[in-house]
Amino acid sequence: MTVETPQHRLSRAKEASRATARLTSDEKAKALEAIAHALEAKAADIIEANTRDVERGRADGIGESLIDRLRLDERRVAALASSVREVAALADPVGQVLGGHRMPNGVALEQVRVPFGVVGAIYEARPNVTVDIAALALRSGNASVLRGGSAARESNTVLVQVMRDALTNAGITAEAIQTVDDFGRDGAKALMQGRGFVDVLIPRGSARLIETVVTESTVPVIETGAGNVHIVLDESAPDEWARDIVVNAKVQRPSVCNAVETVLVLRAAAPRLIPLIGAALKSEGVAIHGDDVVAGLVTEVIPATEEDWATEYLGLEIAIKVVDTLDEALAHIREYSTGHTESIVTTDSRSAERFLAEVDSAVVMVNASTRFTDGAEFGFGAEVGISTQKLHARGPMGLSELTSTKWLARGSGQTRG
Amino acid sequence: MTVETPQHRLSRAKEASRATARLTSDEKAKALEAIAHALEAKAADIIEANTRDVERGRADGIGESLIDRLRLDERRVAALASSVREVAALADPVGQVLGGHRMPNGVALEQVRVPFGVVGAIYEARPNVTVDIAALALRSGNASVLRGGSAARESNTVLVQVMRDALTNAGITAEAIQTVDDFGRDGAKALMQGRGFVDVLIPRGSARLIETVVTESTVPVIETGAGNVHIVLDESAPDEWARDIVVNAKVQRPSVCNAVETVLVLRAAAPRLIPLIGAALKSEGVAIHGDDVVAGLVTEVIPATEEDWATEYLGLEIAIKVVDTLDEALAHIREYSTGHTESIVTTDSRSAERFLAEVDSAVVMVNASTRFTDGAEFGFGAEVGISTQKLHARGPMGLSELTSTKWLARGSGQTRG
Repeated sequence: MTVETPQHRLSRAKEASRATARLTSDEKAKALEAIAHALEAKAADIIEANTRDVERGRADGIGESLIDRLRLDERRVAALASSVREVAALADPVGQVLGGHRMPNGVALEQVRVPFGVVGAIYEARPNVTVDIAALALRSGNASVLRGGSAARESNTVLVQVMRDALTNAGITAEAIQTVDDFGRDGAKALMQGRGFVDVLIPRGSARLIETVVTESTVPVIETGAGNVHIVLDESAPDEWARDIVVNAKVQRPSVCNAVETVLVLRAAAPRLIPLIGAALKSEGVAIHGDDVVAGLVTEVIPATEEDWATEYLGLEIAIKVVDTLDEALAHIREYSTGHTESIVTTDSRSAERFLAEVDSAVVMVNASTRFTDGAEFGFGAEVGISTQKLHARGPMGLSELTSTKWLARGSGQTRG
Repeated sequence: MTVETPQHRLSRAKEASRATARLTSDEKAKALEAIAHALEAKAADIIEANTRDVERGRADGIGESLIDRLRLDERRVAALASSVREVAALADPVGQVLGGHRMPNGVALEQVRVPFGVVGAIYEARPNVTVDIAALALRSGNASVLRGGSAARESNTVLVQVMRDALTNAGITAEAIQTVDDFGRDGAKALMQGRGFVDVLIPRGSARLIETVVTESTVPVIETGAGNVHIVLDESAPDEWARDIVVNAKVQRPSVCNAVETVLVLRAAAPRLIPLIGAALKSEGVAIHGDDVVAGLVTEVIPATEEDWATEYLGLEIAIKVVDTLDEALAHIREYSTGHTESIVTTDSRSAERFLAEVDSAVVMVNASTRFTDGAEFGFGAEVGISTQKLHARGPMGLSELTSTKWLARGSGQTRG
């Protein structure tokens, strides 16, 4: 008997992707409904496996915020099933005709959306991603190969098995959803080196995980997530906009990539705005790291170091720095931004337009909270992740970012002269 | 004095890319005209440097086809200048609004095309690519960093210097066009590992060069070029279409990636079509590698081995194989195709539609010569290369494939609820 390797799974996923690519939109929606139903029916098994992951995590001493990401209860399993149904209801991008024309010799050219083939994902301690990626991949005609990390191992095993059984019941090959979790590090490596089998690989998780995947992969990767997000308060920033936007961007959900981490305040506005936003942030329990000017205007400021400017706190902490000019703010952003989202609060159209033109990030905002960088907020209905790279997709990614294109040419014997 | 490293050049290119990103379409067109003019004015210097490359190449014993690619004479320098003028005349993709909408809360969202920033290119022995890539990159608002290989070293040095001087004269920073050729292998390595400095890297050349770049790069790469191209002759293929398309796809320009390499003939059509295309190919001087059936129908057939099916001859050689069914043809293509271009000759709409749907290549054709896979033929006006990957761009790439996008959000104090 041959011992199974991660490579066998990739190979079967590739084979399965030829079948998923040809499913109709209706067939895919039915398969997703079968998955949603199975998740509900097997909720008890899923929660039981998850409990073992949570207990092991506690024993290993992982932090409460990680435990919270890891945990699945009845409400969360129901939410998973309902998110699968939302994906099933999304418009199918496959087959969309993007353009075309007739060549002068009569050959008819057409560019159409096609599935990538096999979508790989490497992520950490978030069993919901297992279901999200598998569902989004399937809706867009792709097979998926998942590597969800050891912390969520038992949860992911059951979730993948439930989804595979549902596919079989729906008359679709179970090989369209694969996990390589049981191969540990070798599973991740097979994904990263799976040239010819993995058409795109999406890492989701810590900056370190993403860096590893980008560096070690020979397959195409879409970088997602890391967000060292800035807000600039211009001299003309109105009090309320400045305060509300900074507080919302920090406090509304501090653990996510579109939360603000550093606020840059123009010197001329510092005496007016820093006490105001300082008090508002402190009343929300936010610790403030700041430079000398900030320390002179707000109490309990922790002196900011070089490291603060580069830190994604992902919690109730913020860095505030006073800058002399918009140029200095732009230079600071160039040096420290991860290219995710930056916003300026200003009523000066010159500052606004310069900021929009010169900041090189996926999303650049004027007078709005950075928390709006989100697939659902952008109206995509579901989010594959937020790309911080420039190739293929940039910013919030919807279903169509899980597709490629191909050119079809229909002739009647034409040759090139 | 600090010793200059490839990294210094990448860093200056990145800095320069901020300036090129903000050039207007008119400014870029003027700079390209200045480059075209300078190439003509300095033709003698360029040809002199090129002569030294050609002589060194001859002394090193490189083949005549490589020498031909390497050589620049007056006519070819004039053609280079004229291709730069054609690029200058192309529509500028930067600033194009791809879409947008108002969020329910009133934030106005807009997705616009922006330059990548720094475009890197690694290629071999083709000094024309030096000018092509620099011009295309500049037209789309990018800086470029070029690594053209040792064989064309002296030609590339002069070409880059001429273009840089022209930029300076046009009031644009010369740092927008860089070479790292003088650093040899270290220059290529700096490009491949230039995370944060190189936004996209395009390899052009042999399959081995492309494989190296894809495997060793930590920056995003667009794979181009390798074309093990197939034509299937279905049972219903008309004599003339079959003959004309195969001969054109092989003979019209055998050295390029869209030339056909293997012809798969349905068994039922073999006795009718193989003698016909065999004779036509032989009269054009094409050597035929074939299986036993082919050898029974045409004289002077070289027995085909497994290796032939995987070979890009890029010359006057072709492989012909008889298959029992369309399924077998599709399986052969899945195994050996590089995903560039495949074509079927058929009048049976079922075979045509199956071929279009199931062949997973950048361009899939019915009843047309594979030689049509080309940016100019597709109406793009200029070609950056032909992408054989699925991420970002697939098939012939025009100027807009040298751009990314960004989202602009304009609000009036909105925060997320």
